[in-house]
This record gives sequence, structure tokens and C-alpha cells, in this order.
Amino acid sequence: MNTSLIIGVDAGGTHGKLVAVLADGTVLDTGVCEGLNYNAIGMAQARARLKLAVDKLLAKIGCTDYDGLSLGLSALDARADDATTASFAGDVFPTSKLLLDSDAYAALIGGLLGKSGVIAISGTGAMVLGLDENKKQHVIGGWGYKLDEPGGGYGVAIEGLKAALMSLEQIGPDTELGRSALDFLGVGDARGLINALYEEGREPAGIAKFARVVDRLAEAGDSISMEIAAGQMAILARMTGKVLERCPHRLCLHGGMFEHSGQMRRLFLQELSSLCADIEMHEMELPPELGAVLMHMMEHGTLTDEIVTRMKHTWERRTT
Amino acid sequence: MNTSLIIGVDAGGTHGKLVAVLADGTVLDTGVCEGLNYNAIGMAQARARLKLAVDKLLAKIGCTDYDGLSLGLSALDARADDATTASFAGDVFPTSKLLLDSDAYAALIGGLLGKSGVIAISGTGAMVLGLDENKKQHVIGGWGYKLDEPGGGYGVAIEGLKAALMSLEQIGPDTELGRSALDFLGVGDARGLINALYEEGREPAGIAKFARVVDRLAEAGDSISMEIAAGQMAILARMTGKVLERCPHRLCLHGGMFEHSGQMRRLFLQELSSLCADIEMHEMELPPELGAVLMHMMEHGTLTDEIVTRMKHTWERRTT
Repeated sequence: MNTSLIIGVDAGGTHGKLVAVLADGTVLDTGVCEGLNYNAIGMAQARARLKLAVDKLLAKIGCTDYDGLSLGLSALDARADDATTASFAGDVFPTSKLLLDSDAYAALIGGLLGKSGVIAISGTGAMVLGLDENKKQHVIGGWGYKLDEPGGGYGVAIEGLKAALMSLEQIGPDTELGRSALDFLGVGDARGLINALYEEGREPAGIAKFARVVDRLAEAGDSISMEIAAGQMAILARMTGKVLERCPHRLCLHGGMFEHSGQMRRLFLQELSSLCADIEMHEMELPPELGAVLMHMMEHGTLTDEIVTRMKHTWERRTT
Repeated sequence: MNTSLIIGVDAGGTHGKLVAVLADGTVLDTGVCEGLNYNAIGMAQARARLKLAVDKLLAKIGCTDYDGLSLGLSALDARADDATTASFAGDVFPTSKLLLDSDAYAALIGGLLGKSGVIAISGTGAMVLGLDENKKQHVIGGWGYKLDEPGGGYGVAIEGLKAALMSLEQIGPDTELGRSALDFLGVGDARGLINALYEEGREPAGIAKFARVVDRLAEAGDSISMEIAAGQMAILARMTGKVLERCPHRLCLHGGMFEHSGQMRRLFLQELSSLCADIEMHEMELPPELGAVLMHMMEHGTLTDEIVTRMKHTWERRTT
């Protein structure tokens, strides 16, 4: 039995999830930490947060060191180059043991267990990532908050808030979104709504929560909310269709919006089916932090079916 | 002759313009300074920059003090309350001599010489401000960069960049905006475009310059650019129409986009004329920094036609 230890990390913007796995696939334990997006908090803080969480996890399983540390990072949209890896590692993590790729890639690897295919992610942001037969990555989306990232919670929320303002100022169609946006932000009128968005500490992730309101009003039949939901999912579907052109037609869906909204999922799949035939839908087989572990094993040519089977088995035992 | 001295300031985000005027309306001299938006640079720096510019202007005209300091501030969207005024003044400016209102209000007062009416502003941002018969202010717009502020350069630019990305990723209609956006940002592909927008030092004002490209391509017949220009001006026209419902039908246009683009002006007025009849168009009679001086005089009940005439006369002599 190979007892070498690999730590996989799903390094998101609001929190990170860690998992410790033996080289034979046995899942030992998990951990969490604060957000690790170094574009938002800087390399030094991301490194310090991760170090703390890794040490804590090692202590939990009674180990003093690891053989591989593999991260899916929300700050990246492809494999990190040597300079980025060195900068992230500092003098804390040995670069020889460190592997950094995008959080979307780790999610895709976990979702399809390393097989080629496509993942459509709709969380706070939205992004579509594919892996073709030659293991080349294809990415569309991930526009970020400046371009209102269509297809994720933030994009839906911003469209909803714009429609709310238009309605409140009577320069656009009437919609329930007007009153709901005032309630959501705890303000009394359109000027208050605008000012609230620029208050200190009002982060994109907080604004993105308004997507749930848009989703709920769309379910209840508010026509403007329905238009927004359908429009945003149509863009994400077009992105997904374009990536599917270049990759095997295996698709899994990931992210909070897909997890929590049957409506968004349905709107997305409806539009996608009109663009692209013969799609093989997959549930996420393993979560992104285990995807990061698989990523490490693929990189070192050690991944086998037996390992995957053991990983799934020991993971499911933990979570059920 | 009343020799008391009033300093008016158009306090924008990228620069400030100062003017020194005698109480009888005689324009003495002008000055400039860096941006004074304290939401962006903090109260202390805004105060320091203004102090420097006021002292310089006083030295130029051989004075040691002033009787009124009146600002139209881009950080405000209404008259400042006492706490804000005191915070801005610090221990540098006597609050008894200080008057702070929005830059839009100073522009409106300058544009219509204190008469009730409406100003539609399309610069980097966009906002519509009206003054009704009871001198009450009505404002629509000024959504800021988070909501892509429709009707100004930033809103046009963001719509243009979204369309460019859609075209480059082949998930939206083909448009010249794709190639032009890559040139504008000096990048080679869609991923480069996204990354460039998040580079350090990439400010909304810089991104807003892409509006000129959208404007040019619309003139040249690019259909997506034409749609964006018309759509954005339609929203600004609806905002303007709504404010005109509450105010006398005198309208002046202000801001870089209206100044530099006959096309945007035309699209705006076309849409507005379908919403609202009997609009009396006015050229901007005096610039916002002189509007700030008028604001001070109105506040103190000293404004007369004679003063306005002298101000216009001595101002025109300076600028022609």
C-alpha cells in the first residue's frame, strides 16, 4: 500500500475546502478555511490562510507532512505558470509538491473523474470549461463583476436590480422586483437603492444573493423576472454549446444556482438542447477538492480505476 | 460696488475647475486642480487638493481671503447635510462660508442661469437633474459603475465590451466591436480582454473611453454598435422625459458624450421628442463652476439680472 499523502483544495473566493487522501485513494479527513482568491486578498494572506488550514488538517490525521498539495484556485483560469506558483508558494510551500490550476478545472476533473467533457458552473459567477480528447482546456465565460458575468448569481442580480430601478423610476416596465429590491437592501426608494450598492463592505457575493429573489419572482410569474432568468440562462447555454463543439459531449452542472434552483437548471437545459444534441448528462461524481487530488494523480501518472473506486467509496462513507 | 469675493468650483472626479468672481458678477480669474471626489480619494486628500488650488487662485488675483466658497461636487447627489459639510471642511475651510451641492446641480444652475428646468448629463456617467417651480430637485440616473450607468460613456463602453466578447467567443452576433476591443485594450483574444479589464489601475474613466469606439463604429454602420448607441440614449431619454414631467420644459445638455458626439445627441433628442412635446432647448449659458457661484448668490438672495449680465460679459471676454 502506498501511504503517501495528497491534500486537495477547492480554493474559492469566500471559503476553501480541503481533503486529505492517501495515494491509494483512501479519503482520511477534510478541512475548511477562509477564501483563498489572492486577486482579492493578496498572495501573502492567501498563503497564510492555506498554511494554517493545512497544518490543522495534518494535525487532525496525525501527520507532519504531505507529498502533494493540489489546488483548484478561483484566481486562475488555467494552469499556473512557474512564476505564479513560486509567488504563491513563497517560502512556505515547496513548489515541487505544489500544483495550481483553476477551480473550474478541479471541479471538472472531480465531476467527470478525469474524463474529457464539459462543466457548466453557475455560482456567484459563471464559467464553462471543457477538456478535449487531447486534454486541452477550453474556457468561455468568467467575465467577472465588471461585465456582470452572465449566467451566474451576480449577473442575474445586477439585471434584476437594473429592472427594479427602471420600474421604481417609472422609466421601464412595472415589476415586483422594484419593491423586492427595496426590501432586500433595506431602503425606501430608488436613490437609497443606488447608495446602498456603494456602501463599504457591499461585496459582489452579497449583491449576488438578490438572484434568489429574481428566481423566486420568476417562479411566481413576474414577467420581467422570467425574462431575466431565461435571458441569462440562454447566454450560459450558448457558452456551453460553444465549448461542447470542441469536446466530448459529457456535461455536468455545478455551482449554487444550479444546485438551488430547479427553474434555472431547466431553463438552461431547455436552451442548450435546442443548440446541441446527444449530450450525456452526468452528476458531479466527486467534489472539486477531490478533483484537485485527481488532478495531482493525473499529473504524476498514478491514477487508476482502483484508486477512483476507493476514493468514491471512502468519500461516500464520510458523507452519508 | 460690492467687492466681496466668491470662489466657485466644479469638483469632478478627474479634475476640478475653479473661478473667482466678485459679488457684482465680475469674473476675475480661473484655476484648476486634480479630482475632488472624496468617495474615491477620501476627505483629507480632497480637502488638501482644494486648499492648494484656492490658495493658488487667491495669490493669482492678489487676495488673501474669500467670502464664499461654493462647490458642485461629483460625490454628492443633493445638498450636503451639516455633518458632511463639517467633515469636508475639516479645520481648513470655515463652514460658514462653505456651500456644497452636487456637480449636476451646479451645472444646471449655470446652464439655465438659476431658472427652473432640466439638465441631462452624459459624460463618463449619466444623470438627469431637474429643478421644479418650487426649487425642489428631482434626480434620475447616476447609477454608477456597478449598474453600468446607462446613457454615459461607461455604460456605452460596457455594453460594447460585452458585445465584443460575445462576438469573439461566437456566442453572439458578429460585430466590428470584437476586433476594435482587442485593439483598444492591446490584447490578442477574448481571455486577454477579460484579464485586461481587471488590471490594476484600470479605472472606469479609462474603460469609458471605449464609448468613442462604439460611437465611431455606429457612425460607420456596424449594426450592433448602432443598437447599443440607440438603446443607451433611449434610456437616458426616458429618464429625462420623466424628470421633465415634474419641471418646466427647459432643457440643456451637458457632458463629454453630448459635446463630442453629434450622433448621440441626435439619437437622444429623437427618442425624447417621441416622449415629450414642447421642449425649449438651451445651450449651457455658463459653465458649472460659475453655476456654483450663482448657487451661492441664490442661497444668499443676492442674485440679480445685472450680476448675471456682468458675469456673462466678463466670462465671454475671457474665453473668446
